[in-house]
Amino acid sequence: MEKLKKYVSVKDEDHFYHQGAVELLIFNFLLILTILTIWLFKNHRFRFLHETGGAMLYGLLMGLIIQYVTKSADDESGTVYECEKLKSGPSTLLINITNQVYEYQYKREISHHNVNGHQGNAMLQKMTFDPSIFFNILLPPIIFHAGYSLKKRHFFRNLGSILTYAFLGTAISCIVIGVIMYGFVKAMVHIGQLKQWEFHFTDCLFFGSLMSATDPVTVLAIFHELNVDTDLYTLLFGESVLNDAVAIVLTHSISIYSPKENPNAFDAAAFFQSVGNFLGIFAGSFAMGSSYAVVTALISFMHLTKFTKLCEFPMLETGLFFLLSWSAFLSAEAAGLTGIVAVLFCGVTQAHYTYNNLSPDSKMRTKQLFEFMNFLAENVIFCYMGLALFTFQNHIFNPLFIFGALVAVFVARASNIYPLSFLLNLGRKQKIPRNFQHMMMFSGLRGAIAFALAIRDTDSQPKQMMFTTALLIVFFTVWVFGGGTTPMLTWLQIRSVLVGVDPDEDLKPKAASQSASNLDKNTTKAESAWLFRIWYGFDHKYLKPLLTHTGPPLTSTLPGWCSPVARLLTSPSAYGDELKDGDTDYIIDNDELTENYERSVHTPAPAQDSTGSIQATGKEDIQEGDLGLGGYKLQLQHTACQPQKNSLA
Amino acid sequence: MEKLKKYVSVKDEDHFYHQGAVELLIFNFLLILTILTIWLFKNHRFRFLHETGGAMLYGLLMGLIIQYVTKSADDESGTVYECEKLKSGPSTLLINITNQVYEYQYKREISHHNVNGHQGNAMLQKMTFDPSIFFNILLPPIIFHAGYSLKKRHFFRNLGSILTYAFLGTAISCIVIGVIMYGFVKAMVHIGQLKQWEFHFTDCLFFGSLMSATDPVTVLAIFHELNVDTDLYTLLFGESVLNDAVAIVLTHSISIYSPKENPNAFDAAAFFQSVGNFLGIFAGSFAMGSSYAVVTALISFMHLTKFTKLCEFPMLETGLFFLLSWSAFLSAEAAGLTGIVAVLFCGVTQAHYTYNNLSPDSKMRTKQLFEFMNFLAENVIFCYMGLALFTFQNHIFNPLFIFGALVAVFVARASNIYPLSFLLNLGRKQKIPRNFQHMMMFSGLRGAIAFALAIRDTDSQPKQMMFTTALLIVFFTVWVFGGGTTPMLTWLQIRSVLVGVDPDEDLKPKAASQSASNLDKNTTKAESAWLFRIWYGFDHKYLKPLLTHTGPPLTSTLPGWCSPVARLLTSPSAYGDELKDGDTDYIIDNDELTENYERSVHTPAPAQDSTGSIQATGKEDIQEGDLGLGGYKLQLQHTACQPQKNSLA
Repeated sequence: MEKLKKYVSVKDEDHFYHQGAVELLIFNFLLILTILTIWLFKNHRFRFLHETGGAMLYGLLMGLIIQYVTKSADDESGTVYECEKLKSGPSTLLINITNQVYEYQYKREISHHNVNGHQGNAMLQKMTFDPSIFFNILLPPIIFHAGYSLKKRHFFRNLGSILTYAFLGTAISCIVIGVIMYGFVKAMVHIGQLKQWEFHFTDCLFFGSLMSATDPVTVLAIFHELNVDTDLYTLLFGESVLNDAVAIVLTHSISIYSPKENPNAFDAAAFFQSVGNFLGIFAGSFAMGSSYAVVTALISFMHLTKFTKLCEFPMLETGLFFLLSWSAFLSAEAAGLTGIVAVLFCGVTQAHYTYNNLSPDSKMRTKQLFEFMNFLAENVIFCYMGLALFTFQNHIFNPLFIFGALVAVFVARASNIYPLSFLLNLGRKQKIPRNFQHMMMFSGLRGAIAFALAIRDTDSQPKQMMFTTALLIVFFTVWVFGGGTTPMLTWLQIRSVLVGVDPDEDLKPKAASQSASNLDKNTTKAESAWLFRIWYGFDHKYLKPLLTHTGPPLTSTLPGWCSPVARLLTSPSAYGDELKDGDTDYIIDNDELTENYERSVHTPAPAQDSTGSIQATGKEDIQEGDLGLGGYKLQLQHTACQPQKNSLA
Repeated sequence: MEKLKKYVSVKDEDHFYHQGAVELLIFNFLLILTILTIWLFKNHRFRFLHETGGAMLYGLLMGLIIQYVTKSADDESGTVYECEKLKSGPSTLLINITNQVYEYQYKREISHHNVNGHQGNAMLQKMTFDPSIFFNILLPPIIFHAGYSLKKRHFFRNLGSILTYAFLGTAISCIVIGVIMYGFVKAMVHIGQLKQWEFHFTDCLFFGSLMSATDPVTVLAIFHELNVDTDLYTLLFGESVLNDAVAIVLTHSISIYSPKENPNAFDAAAFFQSVGNFLGIFAGSFAMGSSYAVVTALISFMHLTKFTKLCEFPMLETGLFFLLSWSAFLSAEAAGLTGIVAVLFCGVTQAHYTYNNLSPDSKMRTKQLFEFMNFLAENVIFCYMGLALFTFQNHIFNPLFIFGALVAVFVARASNIYPLSFLLNLGRKQKIPRNFQHMMMFSGLRGAIAFALAIRDTDSQPKQMMFTTALLIVFFTVWVFGGGTTPMLTWLQIRSVLVGVDPDEDLKPKAASQSASNLDKNTTKAESAWLFRIWYGFDHKYLKPLLTHTGPPLTSTLPGWCSPVARLLTSPSAYGDELKDGDTDYIIDNDELTENYERSVHTPAPAQDSTGSIQATGKEDIQEGDLGLGGYKLQLQHTACQPQKNSLA
């Protein structure tokens, strides 16, 4: 008897293992299908359905199949059991069922009206993974990659506009959606489509903030492929990256805003508390992310020069880089800040400082690793969004609400882009033309972040309705607007491969010489704000020499009385850099160009080789802002530790 | 009131998110510490504590800190609640507690006597992750990497010996441990240290099979670093890789062996069922793994030639490669086979066929990706083993049992290595010397697989005692034997950097010419068995040309009447290969050497470049079998799709 029971228990456990494998296998299968489809589309230059749209479509189909093929859950689920002895829900519950103790783990709290929704499909229920996997594992690599692959030159040239769109624009979008939805909800209550108590104004604002997170992954991938005008690309890229961070913090602040008495009345104290909260969290997350990156830069810097060669072990270097960057995210989350913001600025700072200290091998490894993780995570998320239409058990479809949200989203996008562009054009030397504005308006897709924010809280009926609506708006925008990007570009006559750009054009001026980048530098200085110039000077004179091997030596930038400290902190290789134009090295691309150029002049390499390496760098420069699939080639140096060798020579 | 409750619920949820982040952060922190320590040790050439030992030590310390610093769990846990209405444990349980419904998820079944053990530490409980994460996510990359980085030339040269050690040796080890432990348990019962009912002979055999999985990660990493004799390295590497697979399937078969009546009596029917089960699962898993690899090879082959260039998108290629290899594991698990065996042979087959079809960029990407994943997963596992001493709540320390197990493990290792070596030496031309045998005896560390097999089933008291014992034996062997590897090598006078090997020696003959490899080939043929020779001929004549771009064209190997089919299936580049010595290409290393050599002869590259590339390949050759940290350098071609270009030229 006892033997038999043990045997059954092992069988049971095996069953559970296989379940885990089956779910992962389904995701794998979806991803393989997606990759094969992408490859087919790329091959036939078919641009009306992007990979993200394809992944979503496959997810949807798979959900449909599972829904109708697999059997529904056992009868027990859906029944609520009473337990009078318990006063609150413990994290682990031990239950004695027919003389056998079972351990159960706390999953979540459920509203009473949702209980019936739980009589769903067992397979689909298992496919629903914890939102914390979304936030802790899938999102960080995507956001980090965005920061790490920022085209810094163009980004800083358009910094003012990007910040305006990201901060002011997202706030406008949030308020406009909130107000329109509140009006809509009031009207729906009036005609009897909705119960009065369901929506407060704060709920509408909450919906506004989560729907303000734009995600033009699809658009940017197409832009990249078609070599669309770099300024437009940078504006959109910069806006969408920062806008995510703003929307996340905004959503958090609104969910915390809780007026004392009437939830519809304005409570100044609570409002200012929320604003203070927003600023505090944003600044805190920024500081957390940057400081992790600075620590990484310092470690890699120390390893490279002062002690010994970490760069001889590219695996350790890559591992450290990866773990410290992920820790930036996790520490921020653990400290109650926003991990996404932290990891974004961590990525930017890593690219600015740490990247310069890495060995050539690690430079390539880190880039490829994050590129790959970004690619996988993105496709998993879009597959999952497709599946979520079926796996999520408590959808509330309200056609009127969805229609209202669609209208609100577009009005909000318009009142973000057009007025702000008008204001920005007053101050900009190089105006943002009309067709760029239309394209930006058109590129307001919603994606992973809006979905993730909506799924985080689906306890109440209004929140469930919001989630369903957000999911459908994501589908609509990704398929319709994502698919329409190529025709729209042609129609708006925007510079791209389709309209008047030679695909190799960008390659030539950059690969040609440094004089071009000097020209760029001057325009950058003229256009950027005074704040940026002060920061740039400080960064170039003190931070760069302290954290990397580029820039002038500290001994020449610090005042005389600091010279003993300065000499201690300056790496031997920095002295050699005094000779070259120090101003070009605040951009990775230029930096590498210079280094390569220098190397080809100073080292006795054959002539063919040196031109080869310059061309290769030029290519990489173009593909730096690469989000999805670009296959840039980095020329791997034969010697493992280039900077080290330089310093010894 | 309602508002307030919602607010509390959000807070509560936030709390749960942060918990997930904190746990991941702790692991990140442990890994960062480990990496910094490895770097320090490598720097000071300190070889007495290897990285795996270090990771385990940090895990142990962290567990100790958590144990004593954090507060213990809430009072609710540890109390068992009654539920008369339930007849069996459903997968999801809804419970109404003070008018609020909570959802609980099934975790596991608990024996009555373990209930008290659950009054443990909440933090530690959360750090205990599901064994299915171990099996589905952490183990596959390690095993795949082992297969993918197999030094095939040396592996096949010693194939007979490796198979003998792996299959016969593991079976011997399992039986010897089982018998000794059974005797020990009987004796303990006799002196009153153990209750009679607890251990059956099958339990002892189960323990024997899980303790037979050796894991010389530590030893091999040191061997690699010290350039130890390649034959010894290959023998150990091959044995440990295959031995894991054998031990896993053996454990499964024994757990299924359930004699009808008396569990101590021998039941022939059940025994043969278990043996059949063993063979069936092994063969099935092998077939599953290989067929996934063949599918991958076919896809990459098709993409490369027949249709268009998948190799233009190295990201897609790498993604497909990664997902299909992982799917091999998951499919096997889902089908009730052994994923580890499937993914191992998938790795070997991928390296043999698919690797040749990949673009140079993807070759490097896949290698680096799996190397990195292997590195991370390995360190996570060893950290986790350290933590498990504290996180696992139901340890049963029985000093006598542990002592007995330690003795049994060493007797079993000795009765595996020495008699089998003696038998093998009767047949081998190149004998396995005495000092090699001692070193193999000494390298019988236990590691991740033994731990994973033991943690899979800890429901009953005997299983818990086995788990505790296995964990302590892992600690002991990794620290004592891992640390003693270097002194042992010196003491046994084994060829290495320490004793009579010039670190660069291996480089010269390999880089020099092909004649050396021809010589090797001849000895290979002389030494290997007839079965292997038949397989080799079949592989070289039909499979290689069908699945890769190397080897002779099918038109010349297939009989005349097949020529239309053969012409269709042969890639254009294969015809060019007729000229070169077709026999060298069954080994990746040689293959690349030849290709590079050919390229340097056929293409008008500068002379410096060609010698450079041959040297680089030579280096890579040596570091191919690299398990841990080796930083091999692959020369990345400037042109993205080399084979494609060749075929067009």
